[in-house]
Amino acid sequence: MPKQFQQLDRVFQALADPTRRAVVERLANGPTAMSELARPFAMALPSFAQHLDVLEACGLVQSQKQGRVRTYRLAPEPLQDAEQWMAQQRAHWERRLDQLDAYLNELKEQHHEPRSPSTDRLEA
Amino acid sequence: MPKQFQQLDRVFQALADPTRRAVVERLANGPTAMSELARPFAMALPSFAQHLDVLEACGLVQSQKQGRVRTYRLAPEPLQDAEQWMAQQRAHWERRLDQLDAYLNELKEQHHEPRSPSTDRLEA
Repeated sequence: MPKQFQQLDRVFQALADPTRRAVVERLANGPTAMSELARPFAMALPSFAQHLDVLEACGLVQSQKQGRVRTYRLAPEPLQDAEQWMAQQRAHWERRLDQLDAYLNELKEQHHEPRSPSTDRLEA
Repeated sequence: MPKQFQQLDRVFQALADPTRRAVVERLANGPTAMSELARPFAMALPSFAQHLDVLEACGLVQSQKQGRVRTYRLAPEPLQDAEQWMAQQRAHWERRLDQLDAYLNELKEQHHEPRSPSTDRLEA
């Protein structure tokens, strides 16, 4: 399986959890220390750390340790890749709707067009 | 947990699989019969049907049976919700970068600005 497919698997998997999405939302506003990130969650720190590990493994966040403080920041490329995949599907879908719409209009025009003896079909 | 959160959980979970993403890609180009959808995959039909069930359970696809043929079509709203969530995170992140950029420029200007005796600071 191409590497990019595996990456999308892991990014979507990482985002399929409300705690991990909340962490991404928080980090979109700037780098944050782990203790600060964990504060809003009624969760043991080791469990919370596992969520951070999932986010870091798929490349959505990066961390750096300085002294005893580990700080996390968002790495936006994987998010952009996933967003781009979704935008592509929507674009295909919308183009298809446009095509359907054009086809329906064509049918309508054919239906309402007044037939005159001069049309090709009647002359033939 | 709010209903919208659960929905995002399930949509991202559904998209975390290459077979299911391939089905979404196929359906973005128009409704397709199940047998036709299954054709490109070296997979037993019951396994493939489970993937379709996951996609249908989270609302990403809808199906209709006519005679012996079940046809699937894309339901784009859940995809749009997930895309919107991603776009929001990116917007926050980009706004933060802009703010950082403005701050850095401000620092640079202060650093390079020639000090003159007429500035407020020196007059005070």
